[in-house]
Amino acid sequence: MTVFLVGAGPGDPELLTVRAARLLAAADVVVHDRLISPEVMALIGPGARLHDVGKAPGLSHSQERINELLVSLGRRYGCVVRLKGGDPFVFGRGGEEAVALGAEGVAVEVVAGITSAFAGPLLAGIPVTHRGLSHGVTVVTGSAVPGATVDFRPLANPDVTLVVLMGVRRRRIIARELMEGGLDPATPVAVIERASSDEQRVLRCALDELGPLSVSAPAVLVIGAVAALELGRVAPLAASFALSS
Amino acid sequence: MTVFLVGAGPGDPELLTVRAARLLAAADVVVHDRLISPEVMALIGPGARLHDVGKAPGLSHSQERINELLVSLGRRYGCVVRLKGGDPFVFGRGGEEAVALGAEGVAVEVVAGITSAFAGPLLAGIPVTHRGLSHGVTVVTGSAVPGATVDFRPLANPDVTLVVLMGVRRRRIIARELMEGGLDPATPVAVIERASSDEQRVLRCALDELGPLSVSAPAVLVIGAVAALELGRVAPLAASFALSS
Repeated sequence: MTVFLVGAGPGDPELLTVRAARLLAAADVVVHDRLISPEVMALIGPGARLHDVGKAPGLSHSQERINELLVSLGRRYGCVVRLKGGDPFVFGRGGEEAVALGAEGVAVEVVAGITSAFAGPLLAGIPVTHRGLSHGVTVVTGSAVPGATVDFRPLANPDVTLVVLMGVRRRRIIARELMEGGLDPATPVAVIERASSDEQRVLRCALDELGPLSVSAPAVLVIGAVAALELGRVAPLAASFALSS
Repeated sequence: MTVFLVGAGPGDPELLTVRAARLLAAADVVVHDRLISPEVMALIGPGARLHDVGKAPGLSHSQERINELLVSLGRRYGCVVRLKGGDPFVFGRGGEEAVALGAEGVAVEVVAGITSAFAGPLLAGIPVTHRGLSHGVTVVTGSAVPGATVDFRPLANPDVTLVVLMGVRRRRIIARELMEGGLDPATPVAVIERASSDEQRVLRCALDELGPLSVSAPAVLVIGAVAALELGRVAPLAASFALSS
């Protein structure tokens, strides 16, 4: 009787952990998000019940209802897998689910996954840290949340790579605030759309070109000197479009 | 004829990616660091040649010699695995190896791994982001590098979790600079020693107690409000010692 909060990684089933693959095959029930790839879903054992709790815009299961569902399933089934994109504890709201389950006495185990915050850049050939270019990396979410919208000005640091998840919609504001914070308008930016999928696409531009750039979500934004790099062959092979020299 | 730069994750073989496990079984040669766990090493196929290029203090293979070795092996063998702790592109110097291999025309593929920067906290029950406590996370290395030693004062941000890798030796300076930068001396800190191994140990204290704390490397430092959390049962079960209330 355990609820496993499992990271599904960026989408490519080869980037699941060994433990995640085992748990998917063994699960009695899988509660999954909307953006889990079909290739990962295909690894779920044939006997498992599925619950889609994908939070489509305007048609959302509230986090409270998801928590209630997990508690109720955790009391009825031996192996419940709560499958979350990326890593459950990196912008996955896995912490909130763990709190809710713990409060009701349901056993929880958390299984790390590859976060798209790092796999996205890697699949575009970008190391988030690189000697002489970046000695650290900050990961934030760009989505506006009432009372918790990130102010990007204090994050303007030319020595630290900035990775923004869920930042497509607010990319104009993000770029403006970073430049107000002191970041050079010529700072390289890479945008990785649908990282690790067959439709992965990499766009590159300068920070002051990010606002008007045509981007479709979901995408990972990488801002900093490393965003100009393109190292190694990556799989799936990314289609790269250089928008600025 | 490809050199695969492969992330070995934090040490637990269950946290390898499916792709990493496959590549270890198929490799002709494996070039590995000192800190790769015996459990991960056990997954290497019986026919593979091994090269230990671990950088023990004072007994180091220079990065240049490692690069030369990889180029030479990449030209002779079909499947060379360069196995690195964590993720090759997060403080792994994988970028430098990819540059060196690319410059010599050797094909490179980079395979993401679970970074201990996130798996370490997770295995201690700590989500690096959590609604109301942290809306982002910064990862830096604490090791002093001539000309590139991180100044921690600009990283003092109460809304963003700070994760420090290789920071054990300089923990007094790190704590002092963060407090000089404005971080509350009571800010929670968690130290995860040997994350994911059987000897994993979690220490907790306040920021102004970090300097004198007895810690042994390798360890991950987590600094911020989330460091007080302990969510979920984790495997292997961490021995936790609460040093301050």
